[in-house]
Amino acid sequence: MSDVVAEPATDAGHVRRANVVGLGLIGGSIAVALRRRGWVVCGEDGVTGRAAEAVQRGVIDRDGLDADAEITFVATPVGALPGAVQAALDATRGLVSDVGSVKAPVANAVSDPRFVPGHPMAGSELIGLEGADPDMFSGAVWVLTPRADTPDTAFTAVASIVSDLGAEVVAVPADAHDALVAVVSHVPHLTAATLMGLADERAQDHAALLRLAAGGFRDMTRIASGHPAIWPDICAENRDAIVATLDQLIDGLTHVRELVGGGDRAGLTAVLERARQARSNLPSRSVRPEELAEVRVPIPDRPGAAAEVFTLAAELGVNIDSFEVVHSLEGTSGVAVLLVDAERSERFRGGLLARGFKPSVRRLV
Amino acid sequence: MSDVVAEPATDAGHVRRANVVGLGLIGGSIAVALRRRGWVVCGEDGVTGRAAEAVQRGVIDRDGLDADAEITFVATPVGALPGAVQAALDATRGLVSDVGSVKAPVANAVSDPRFVPGHPMAGSELIGLEGADPDMFSGAVWVLTPRADTPDTAFTAVASIVSDLGAEVVAVPADAHDALVAVVSHVPHLTAATLMGLADERAQDHAALLRLAAGGFRDMTRIASGHPAIWPDICAENRDAIVATLDQLIDGLTHVRELVGGGDRAGLTAVLERARQARSNLPSRSVRPEELAEVRVPIPDRPGAAAEVFTLAAELGVNIDSFEVVHSLEGTSGVAVLLVDAERSERFRGGLLARGFKPSVRRLV
Repeated sequence: MSDVVAEPATDAGHVRRANVVGLGLIGGSIAVALRRRGWVVCGEDGVTGRAAEAVQRGVIDRDGLDADAEITFVATPVGALPGAVQAALDATRGLVSDVGSVKAPVANAVSDPRFVPGHPMAGSELIGLEGADPDMFSGAVWVLTPRADTPDTAFTAVASIVSDLGAEVVAVPADAHDALVAVVSHVPHLTAATLMGLADERAQDHAALLRLAAGGFRDMTRIASGHPAIWPDICAENRDAIVATLDQLIDGLTHVRELVGGGDRAGLTAVLERARQARSNLPSRSVRPEELAEVRVPIPDRPGAAAEVFTLAAELGVNIDSFEVVHSLEGTSGVAVLLVDAERSERFRGGLLARGFKPSVRRLV
Repeated sequence: MSDVVAEPATDAGHVRRANVVGLGLIGGSIAVALRRRGWVVCGEDGVTGRAAEAVQRGVIDRDGLDADAEITFVATPVGALPGAVQAALDATRGLVSDVGSVKAPVANAVSDPRFVPGHPMAGSELIGLEGADPDMFSGAVWVLTPRADTPDTAFTAVASIVSDLGAEVVAVPADAHDALVAVVSHVPHLTAATLMGLADERAQDHAALLRLAAGGFRDMTRIASGHPAIWPDICAENRDAIVATLDQLIDGLTHVRELVGGGDRAGLTAVLERARQARSNLPSRSVRPEELAEVRVPIPDRPGAAAEVFTLAAELGVNIDSFEVVHSLEGTSGVAVLLVDAERSERFRGGLLARGFKPSVRRLV
């Protein structure tokens, strides 16, 4: 990941240029993060006057789209994405990515070699331009969901740009993304809201209830304090995965209810012990240099090969700390150089070999 | 609340003495918190050698119970409380309180004018003596569940001691306590574990799932990282309230599932908006002096009157920032002097008048 620079970012001698469509919390944060790194950022928003306000606040450089921008990030509400992404492809000659919380609908609706769908797993309780934060993506996971036919050049270019913003790139197929975020984001959000609503109802009977709400309850309901506006869209777009996950959660709670009702101490302990262990296995974001290994993977000359390396890493639970694609002197095919968790580097090597890649692994000391 | 003092605490010229039965995380924390305030603390534990270890670590002064201690805190596992509380009453001449997470079973099992059941809403992910922390109760709510026949002197003495440890006293009947903690503690804990188990199951299929778990998911499952040992007891003792609350949560999630499945955007927004508002109304622990009012309540000469003042405050959602009971020159009956949130002081006055008290309210500036 590159250091932040004050001068204009240049690529082959040119100032790098980007567009941001949709200047809310995430779009605004991308714009200021790019500008801090020297990019010139143009932008537009469906709300009249919002782009002008963004110029005034220093979030973007200019109102309107730059047809020659290297990349256009589309950060509209989820329901509007397919149309907005297609419009960005039509209006510009560069790459296009989006930031929607649901990926299959837009990934299936728009098949263009210049489009790489994405989803930064970041945010805050703030809304709109006021919350725009150039550090929002530092240390965050930024999911990319390349298609099988996404060109390597497009995928690695977008991965490189979001990686420069401080994010950790995780590549998964769009359908898998939607199933996973139903579990780790959408259903937890709905559950927090349901629990908070239940407590609120009981608080009508006894005002002391909320005074008894200690740290654990506050932690559990924190996400329920977010603004509801984006959720009807998300629930509509990811309906099937959310309903399926809610069904599983309801089954799980019904099982726990039976354990409690039946006084099954061993069963209850098993549920809690499994959860405790799983919780302690949540990946840590901080990796010390001595725990990294460098994996070099020559990228074969076929479409989607670079994306496949990233997707395989995600499938195998291998954290890519940083990466670059270097090109050999002989031709256009490149070598992906990835830094990964040392303890998972052998697993990664095995997976790459099984898929026909020829990796080399070197432990960093 | 008194400042921390280095010299021995004295009451009518004597060093103050306490016992702690059960030297785990909470018992150990009470012991070190009292010792820091100059108390001499004796202690015992069912595990051989634990009390000796506690002496060695400076958690208590002496192994064994002091029959003349002013108060004995019983901090055994919930299932063992009735026996341990009765044993403490038999072995000592002072007050007895406990710290169990479920209150009705022990409050109903032991009716002794020297016993005031309690529950500090504090803890940490640590276990045992190693986690003992003299600041654990600073700013925490400490629930007391006096019975109708709990003498005023016993109630106010225990309230005063836990208040000196930095806690905020909230008085509610034992049954109400158990119903409320099912909502704000027990069911949230079981839900966090269920959600974590569900994510763990899905992570078997796709290792990337846990990498996508951002701050919201981490917040929601944090309490699932606690040690499971205490939970089978809690679930057994508070079974009915937990089962009833799980049923309500399952109903709530089933309703949300129907809203998502049916594409009911307005219904979904209503659920989320209600939760957002309720979350923003969670009481804050920090009260500025200009927001306090002093309420003086002469305590009539009948048993349970002081406890009733506190219980009424909790019912009305009135936060008692601090209190003392001062005695009039004429006799033994006293005046409770309470500092409460100024904005709720009129509500409190109304409630007190309705119950036959004769309060006076003065806003502090």
